[in-house]
Amino acid sequence: MHARLLSAPSRASAAATSSSSLPSAGDHPCRASWKPRPSRTSTSPPRPLSLRARASMEPAPPEGQSDPPVHGVSNRVVGVLGGGQLGKMLCQAASQMGIKVAILDPLENCPASSVCHEHVIGSFDDGDTVREFAKRCGVLTVEIEHVDAVTLEKLEKQGVVCEPKASTIMIIQDKYRQKEHFSKFGIPLPDFVQVDNLSSIEKAGEMFGYPLMVKSKRLAYDGRGNAVAHNKRELSSVVSSLGGFEHGLYVERWTPFAKELSVIVARSRDGSTVCYPVVQTIHKDNICHVVEAPAEIPEKMKTLATGVAEKAVKSLEGAGVFAVELFLTNDNQVLLNEVAPRPHNSGHQTIEACYTSQYEQHLRAILGFPLGDPSMKAPAAVMYNILGEDEGESGFVLAHQMIGRALNIPGASVHWYAKPEMRKQRKMGHITIVGPSMFSVKARLDKLLQRDNDGLTKVRPRAAIIMGSDSDLPVMKDAKEVLEKFNIPFELTIVSAHRTPQRMYEYALSAKERGLEVIIAGAGGAAHLPGMVASLTTVPVIGVPIWTKSLQGMDSLLSIVQMPKGIPVATVAIGNAENAGLLAVRMLASRDPDLSDRMNKYQQNLEDSVLEKARLLEELGPDDYLKQYMKP
Amino acid sequence: MHARLLSAPSRASAAATSSSSLPSAGDHPCRASWKPRPSRTSTSPPRPLSLRARASMEPAPPEGQSDPPVHGVSNRVVGVLGGGQLGKMLCQAASQMGIKVAILDPLENCPASSVCHEHVIGSFDDGDTVREFAKRCGVLTVEIEHVDAVTLEKLEKQGVVCEPKASTIMIIQDKYRQKEHFSKFGIPLPDFVQVDNLSSIEKAGEMFGYPLMVKSKRLAYDGRGNAVAHNKRELSSVVSSLGGFEHGLYVERWTPFAKELSVIVARSRDGSTVCYPVVQTIHKDNICHVVEAPAEIPEKMKTLATGVAEKAVKSLEGAGVFAVELFLTNDNQVLLNEVAPRPHNSGHQTIEACYTSQYEQHLRAILGFPLGDPSMKAPAAVMYNILGEDEGESGFVLAHQMIGRALNIPGASVHWYAKPEMRKQRKMGHITIVGPSMFSVKARLDKLLQRDNDGLTKVRPRAAIIMGSDSDLPVMKDAKEVLEKFNIPFELTIVSAHRTPQRMYEYALSAKERGLEVIIAGAGGAAHLPGMVASLTTVPVIGVPIWTKSLQGMDSLLSIVQMPKGIPVATVAIGNAENAGLLAVRMLASRDPDLSDRMNKYQQNLEDSVLEKARLLEELGPDDYLKQYMKP
Repeated sequence: MHARLLSAPSRASAAATSSSSLPSAGDHPCRASWKPRPSRTSTSPPRPLSLRARASMEPAPPEGQSDPPVHGVSNRVVGVLGGGQLGKMLCQAASQMGIKVAILDPLENCPASSVCHEHVIGSFDDGDTVREFAKRCGVLTVEIEHVDAVTLEKLEKQGVVCEPKASTIMIIQDKYRQKEHFSKFGIPLPDFVQVDNLSSIEKAGEMFGYPLMVKSKRLAYDGRGNAVAHNKRELSSVVSSLGGFEHGLYVERWTPFAKELSVIVARSRDGSTVCYPVVQTIHKDNICHVVEAPAEIPEKMKTLATGVAEKAVKSLEGAGVFAVELFLTNDNQVLLNEVAPRPHNSGHQTIEACYTSQYEQHLRAILGFPLGDPSMKAPAAVMYNILGEDEGESGFVLAHQMIGRALNIPGASVHWYAKPEMRKQRKMGHITIVGPSMFSVKARLDKLLQRDNDGLTKVRPRAAIIMGSDSDLPVMKDAKEVLEKFNIPFELTIVSAHRTPQRMYEYALSAKERGLEVIIAGAGGAAHLPGMVASLTTVPVIGVPIWTKSLQGMDSLLSIVQMPKGIPVATVAIGNAENAGLLAVRMLASRDPDLSDRMNKYQQNLEDSVLEKARLLEELGPDDYLKQYMKP
Repeated sequence: MHARLLSAPSRASAAATSSSSLPSAGDHPCRASWKPRPSRTSTSPPRPLSLRARASMEPAPPEGQSDPPVHGVSNRVVGVLGGGQLGKMLCQAASQMGIKVAILDPLENCPASSVCHEHVIGSFDDGDTVREFAKRCGVLTVEIEHVDAVTLEKLEKQGVVCEPKASTIMIIQDKYRQKEHFSKFGIPLPDFVQVDNLSSIEKAGEMFGYPLMVKSKRLAYDGRGNAVAHNKRELSSVVSSLGGFEHGLYVERWTPFAKELSVIVARSRDGSTVCYPVVQTIHKDNICHVVEAPAEIPEKMKTLATGVAEKAVKSLEGAGVFAVELFLTNDNQVLLNEVAPRPHNSGHQTIEACYTSQYEQHLRAILGFPLGDPSMKAPAAVMYNILGEDEGESGFVLAHQMIGRALNIPGASVHWYAKPEMRKQRKMGHITIVGPSMFSVKARLDKLLQRDNDGLTKVRPRAAIIMGSDSDLPVMKDAKEVLEKFNIPFELTIVSAHRTPQRMYEYALSAKERGLEVIIAGAGGAAHLPGMVASLTTVPVIGVPIWTKSLQGMDSLLSIVQMPKGIPVATVAIGNAENAGLLAVRMLASRDPDLSDRMNKYQQNLEDSVLEKARLLEELGPDDYLKQYMKP
């Protein structure tokens, strides 16, 4: 979630930030000050707020009426409560599609102000302001859930289209109510209970044990409103740090998790849903630090996480994108942490990495268009949040250094929200790195964060060379040399099907998850290794039959090549590990233009070298050629 | 190039479009009217134009001076002459990076006006206006080349940074001068000659033959300023259609081309260059209609085209992206058509398809940042221009229908420029479709254009099954069934190494270009087909040895598997075409998450079916099992 000052500015301060050429509307109860743009400011006397917009901002016709001809994707003005970075990115997606967005935000220089169609300076948790704002919009949505949901509910009853629905925002605003809601719908959650006084929180402590997570019900984000009591004695200080019981508190059983996951789910106005690939979120001091897409977890866990997320969203009303934050526990359970009814920090990377970004998706969903394809168009992405590292200028200098490094990293896109003030831990921008594999984007992230030397840059292999015995190495080294020549990261080890069956089993089973794209397996005699490995993974396996004394490798060849139907092994000639390496490169090159180029050149060189030999043979004649080039 | 009204508005008309709350600056020579946004319009008396901007718009310090701390990517304001769709997309890229863009364009509602930081309403081919505009900018660039280059040259002498340089814009503005320039630098071009009168054009007609291409030197775009004379008699009418010799004309030898190509080249301020992948442009009525990225041409031609483009750009001065439009002739020559010193229609798809879009690249280049990675992050893209199909409302309705279809197509992104007026053939927006292969994006484009039934949707195969003889079909059909089951488009044919060597040669050589990602080759006896094909392509080849009467397929197996070093064939068991199909699927799945999922499930089913058999065997006992399930 993103940081935001939530209190509404007083009338006086709102007036102070408003444009001085637009006098306040006298006695009209006006907390908002319109800043239409392109500003064809009228010289006629000031009129009430709601009339001060451009012709194109006439209220959209009520839903269902026949619309006027559409000049582009949609004529409907999208009103967004909140103008932070999420609002800005929503506006950027809208700008591309020619959709007009009006923003309601109290800050004159809020990030979205520079790219929205219309910025209304006013508070999104003030009923009058929201009501006035809604008149200008064909559909109302949010980029922050701490808005005046009661007013939204009233507006809905008057026929204003709000997506998602006010009911959803009310549930989400109150984290305890959110838990209750999802619990009722059978969504797996950490255990939780409301606490009203010291005796009830002590009872909860006994029930759940320590450490105990204590949480505010409302206005909590980025870890604010959460505190941990490590024992009974700490309870009262933790409670007062959260403002006391009168603020509304609940406690949660401490969840030791293996990973934090997030799934963005989009639901359109017709109720259909699509889910983005599961991502892993890495938090630091309770603030989202890094997002890895896709999450590196087993397929089964992805299916489970997506199922929980989709079920959670289906329990809520309204259209839009929803971010479902999840815990993956050490015992492979997926528990819901919380839901955001809007685009989310864990979906920033969808801008560059997915066919349809979460922002475009949100617009499609709330406007009732068909949902776009949420899948990734590139194999891997990481998102890094640029948080304020210091206050003021020195914070800007540090951020600028980070950006400078990012501009040097292939596949990195820099987003800068242009927030007027730099504060510690404030989300100032983000960097998304997209690339051909999770290994490569992580390595680039390490470079960005200058942590090249802490062992994190260990190259993740794309290929493996395995053999049944070290005696196979003199043959298998030829495969190694090919992979080295083509600069393909690989691992090389001994895995025997007969002597280390358990190791072989685990090795093969984890191959896909560890990112291996091809396995070269050499074996001799009753050569079961290639076939066994192929049976345990979907990664293509290349088998190299090793020469044997008794049967000259024919036993190896036949036991590798003669696999039963269903389990293919790509077999090469007896002892020809070089060809196994080249075959692996061909496989990897199929979607890697650069590698494909190099393979082309290699093959060209092969041809050239034979042509050169032919030239020499013709020039020298066979006798001289034999003498000069074929000496034993 | 994009359509634009190029004449400067008169003082009166410029004043009329200016905001009425900003009185004109009296006697100050002011063609421009400032429209700063967020408009904190001052109530103090009108001041001269150059003072009417926000504090943040103070002129940037001259290059080389130590800059103030940077609040984001750059403090430098980028001034753009022209505010059409190219300017708009430049602003969108800038907005993401928090870079401020000021636009100079005479039209109040020009596309860029909705997303720029500042829009100055004024003419970019008027010296005074450009001079005033330049004061507000840290670097000046163009999104259209028909600007006042003489003024730019003067500004450069005064220390204003213009990228690219005025000298470049002068060369490009005059198409004849452009040809002379590139000719001097040894860039291959169609023959051309200047014509001043009827006798010189007749002489040129004799020299080059007919049809003869007659061109205006200046203000030509989207085919305007070009005309074709089919014979000597047509010459005088063609000349008057172009405004007569006094307009400045030249002629070009008619170039029958196989394809039109384009290469976007970026050059940074330090002189380093990067080139985007070569794309094919398909024109209709001289206007860019479709762009295919990457171009489907041999690697050699790509290298040649990139070389010509890079050489052309290196002959020009200044930083930025340059679009080099090329002809690929029927005899495999690459000739330069023309260069645009700015982002270009043929680079729109870089927004979604490349790591760094041409727009971000242009900003990086002119601001002196490192250039981004121009390569494609997804395998294929097509760009389709939404041109006005009719004037006014009915044109909007047709465009809206097109957009409606696009929103239903996976991987399609809609760009709508929000031009206030719809005109026939006007570029109103574009649609980019990104996908996993050129086949799939073309098929989606066909769907968009509702041309599903004209044969263009022929599925482009990802895999091929070839065999030496029809007698191999009973075996090879198993591979076919696997590919069908996994829904992989494939082709199946007979190619004999011994009986159709020429066909085999051409087939293998073209495999990569035709988009094949894997070839399954079945052959029996002296089975040379798999190996020969593997030697002629870098596409991985899977060999299926076919059973033979005399040697039970051992001859086939050994002649397929025992390949010399350098030419690998992935060999499967004798007659096991099913495994060949499965191996092909594994290879294709390595970067195709969806296919990978399905392969996983297939393998799981395989395991489940054996476990089910084990259960039955244990339940029934071997005798009953044999009776029930193993009946002959």
